[in-house]
Amino acid sequence: MSESELKQLSLFQPCSSAFLEKLDAHKQIQNFKRGKVIFIQGDEAERFYLIRKGWVKLFRETRDGAQAIIDVVPAGRLFGEKAVLENDHHSCTAEVVEDAEIVSYSLADLKKELETDSDLTKSMLQEMARQCHRQEKELEHRSIQNAAQRIGCLLLRLSDQTAEGPVSIKLPYDKTLIAAQLGMQPETFSRALGKLREQLGLEIQGANIQIDDLQKLVSFSCSACSFDFPCKDLQEAAE
Amino acid sequence: MSESELKQLSLFQPCSSAFLEKLDAHKQIQNFKRGKVIFIQGDEAERFYLIRKGWVKLFRETRDGAQAIIDVVPAGRLFGEKAVLENDHHSCTAEVVEDAEIVSYSLADLKKELETDSDLTKSMLQEMARQCHRQEKELEHRSIQNAAQRIGCLLLRLSDQTAEGPVSIKLPYDKTLIAAQLGMQPETFSRALGKLREQLGLEIQGANIQIDDLQKLVSFSCSACSFDFPCKDLQEAAE
Repeated sequence: MSESELKQLSLFQPCSSAFLEKLDAHKQIQNFKRGKVIFIQGDEAERFYLIRKGWVKLFRETRDGAQAIIDVVPAGRLFGEKAVLENDHHSCTAEVVEDAEIVSYSLADLKKELETDSDLTKSMLQEMARQCHRQEKELEHRSIQNAAQRIGCLLLRLSDQTAEGPVSIKLPYDKTLIAAQLGMQPETFSRALGKLREQLGLEIQGANIQIDDLQKLVSFSCSACSFDFPCKDLQEAAE
Repeated sequence: MSESELKQLSLFQPCSSAFLEKLDAHKQIQNFKRGKVIFIQGDEAERFYLIRKGWVKLFRETRDGAQAIIDVVPAGRLFGEKAVLENDHHSCTAEVVEDAEIVSYSLADLKKELETDSDLTKSMLQEMARQCHRQEKELEHRSIQNAAQRIGCLLLRLSDQTAEGPVSIKLPYDKTLIAAQLGMQPETFSRALGKLREQLGLEIQGANIQIDDLQKLVSFSCSACSFDFPCKDLQEAAE
């Protein structure tokens, strides 16, 4: 039997093959179109999810009906697994924002293993600490970076941070969502993108962005950040 | 021997008396004046801390020298304990912002216990999940609430949320720090406080604020929040 794709996730690295085989035995693979809602805030949770392809938006709704984006999750990452810490309920809504291939697993299997496998608990604690770090960084940026610096940061996170020479990026989902994710109005986003074009010479054509000099963007955005470049959390996630 | 004060913290509730006695055996009690720096971002971590009295600000500095507030920690809460997840280094700076009495404990003792006590690991995972929740809420508010709503939220969090009738609050530390904690400029803070006075009839005299009708403030701030009032995380912290 080939190695489970879950083994590539740092969360499951300490786990036994027997447990991963058990998860795999009950897995489901599904293709979802953009716009598909996978679960809703408050739903009883039965599955957790690994994105193979596409992007998924996690959000909550306020009483006023406004959407607060919690995360936009890329391929290679899990979502929904935190319900094991939330009395088996999802604390947010998950919606596909770019056509996706998603594998789902039994949350009950995960929960049962957490009861007895302390290495998995420790691994989940490390994952949670990483998430806290990402959020702290985001909060910091909301306080300290201006709109153009925040967009610059997102572009750097979408880039190969070890690249030399010019870098090309394709924005992975629509600009309205990127603006919402960064906590800004679409108009603010457009103005700030214009500023990046003027001041740093970024070439922007629709969703395609060319950066001639990554270091210039690093100086621009990362000077207003307390974390080191290249971003350690991205490296950890890739491990 | 009287029960350890650590037993009152949800993190340590599942722990054995023997372990808590060990922590207590190496504890140090210190009084610090406002302005005292307890540890600096990047410091090797040897102790973790419980605030008995006063307030402590946790922050990081950007390369530009700007301060990003991570948290302002009240009496009854720990700080510095997360260094066990960060290779025994503090990832932020801790500075006393109101004269404080602080008990410190050995981080090595905590770390050693985490290796063998899976209940403590699970408890720490729950704590971390709570912190993630608090941060998600804060991020949500930065995206969705205006400055006056964010201040209203802070006032509600400083209030007895089950109170009926008029409520009096004393701001626990200076307004410049509150503004920074909420991610706004001091001028924005002053203007927004003025708006709360005009629109909701708050009486503000220096650090003293009187709220005639808590429900009015709840309608004003919590309508732009995806969490329920009274705030569940405050209740959990008090358990």
